[in-house]
Amino acid sequence: MRTLKLTVAYDGSRFVGWQRQAEGESIQGLIEAALTPIEGAPVAVHGAGRTDAGVHALGQVASVQIASSLDTATLTRALNAQLPPDIRILIIEQKEHGFHARFSARSKCYRYQFQVAAIASPFERAYAWHLQDRLDIESMQAAAAVLIGRHDFAAFQSAGSPVTDTVRTVTRSEVRAGRLLAYEVCGSGFLRHMVRAIAGTLVEVGEGRRTPAGVASLLQGGRRADAGRTAPPHGLFLVGVDYD
Amino acid sequence: MRTLKLTVAYDGSRFVGWQRQAEGESIQGLIEAALTPIEGAPVAVHGAGRTDAGVHALGQVASVQIASSLDTATLTRALNAQLPPDIRILIIEQKEHGFHARFSARSKCYRYQFQVAAIASPFERAYAWHLQDRLDIESMQAAAAVLIGRHDFAAFQSAGSPVTDTVRTVTRSEVRAGRLLAYEVCGSGFLRHMVRAIAGTLVEVGEGRRTPAGVASLLQGGRRADAGRTAPPHGLFLVGVDYD
Repeated sequence: MRTLKLTVAYDGSRFVGWQRQAEGESIQGLIEAALTPIEGAPVAVHGAGRTDAGVHALGQVASVQIASSLDTATLTRALNAQLPPDIRILIIEQKEHGFHARFSARSKCYRYQFQVAAIASPFERAYAWHLQDRLDIESMQAAAAVLIGRHDFAAFQSAGSPVTDTVRTVTRSEVRAGRLLAYEVCGSGFLRHMVRAIAGTLVEVGEGRRTPAGVASLLQGGRRADAGRTAPPHGLFLVGVDYD
Repeated sequence: MRTLKLTVAYDGSRFVGWQRQAEGESIQGLIEAALTPIEGAPVAVHGAGRTDAGVHALGQVASVQIASSLDTATLTRALNAQLPPDIRILIIEQKEHGFHARFSARSKCYRYQFQVAAIASPFERAYAWHLQDRLDIESMQAAAAVLIGRHDFAAFQSAGSPVTDTVRTVTRSEVRAGRLLAYEVCGSGFLRHMVRAIAGTLVEVGEGRRTPAGVASLLQGGRRADAGRTAPPHGLFLVGVDYD
């Protein structure tokens, strides 16, 4: 068996999410379905991270073990020929045995996009959270910065999650102004809905309803109800996953 | 009756085009349907230019005569509340009687986007023509420049068009490299499929199959079959319309 690393981009708009579900199309399910006839047997594809329905990826990483000896360029073309155009395999690389997209990952980076405008552009509606009111970007930048480091992010984990160790290390946390306003965050691991909860909280900072100091205090035993709303999924992109 | 000027953006992907058709949803038809209950009577909306199925607009302009005395800001909100999110009324302005989106227009600008990449991005698939082979951008720029001025564009009009006066004035014609490769063109009037026929011809220049001089010669009595293929609709944007 060979171990392959797939780098995958997708527009998550119409999918139930990365993960295979009983109902609806998932990115994982479609890649597995595209690989099966090539392999001649069912194939299990493991993603670096689950993305929810509506969440996009510029560089999701998946690992798979297959017996097929097809070269990686041919396999990339064969998979893309099978997959719908809103999912693209960008590159396939052969890795050492034992490589696993999730367990071998060192860090992941996400980007959350906001469109601040009186009227939402038809071209950003599926890729950015539309907000009508002007935001205080400097305060948002200050609040984003307090999240860098090793902290207890329990206040940013979706309610009801079974995960009890909620300490995570964030290595980058930055709000950038541009054509769209964006929050960019990297870390070794993320809790469920953590980036979206941070994004929603940062918007409340931008609206003047919270302060950077208030955000810092959420890291000191804050609970989910203390932080801001969860931002909608369609503004979120899994940008990339790093490995050693 | 008041005469209103509507500036409209739309993602043309799922529509039959600007113009009302017997079957399928059109942008014109949906705006008329949104205006009718406000006006309490059927309303006719006139666009500056028809866009085909799949063609987008950043700033289409439409004119309408209505009796309703609603202020323009309220009317904008009311229309956007009725319209689907892939059509947005950006602004409504009251104009002098006699203003007509099409007949009063002085010039229009279009943009045609190309994505030159081995693998098409899921995020550009509906907004740029995907081309896999490297293009000679300098030659495309030289070929675009020869189109500026008053010329007979018969070679760039879709076959079978009833229009016989095929002389048009192009004031801007430029290929720009960026995240996407783009052809930008402005002029006082355009023949049917003219921008897409130019875009397809420019690609053949970029591929080395035509020269800028060859494109210039198309303006000297060339026929449609002499020019390049018609580029697909989804790369085309009506950028804006100018009035005196």
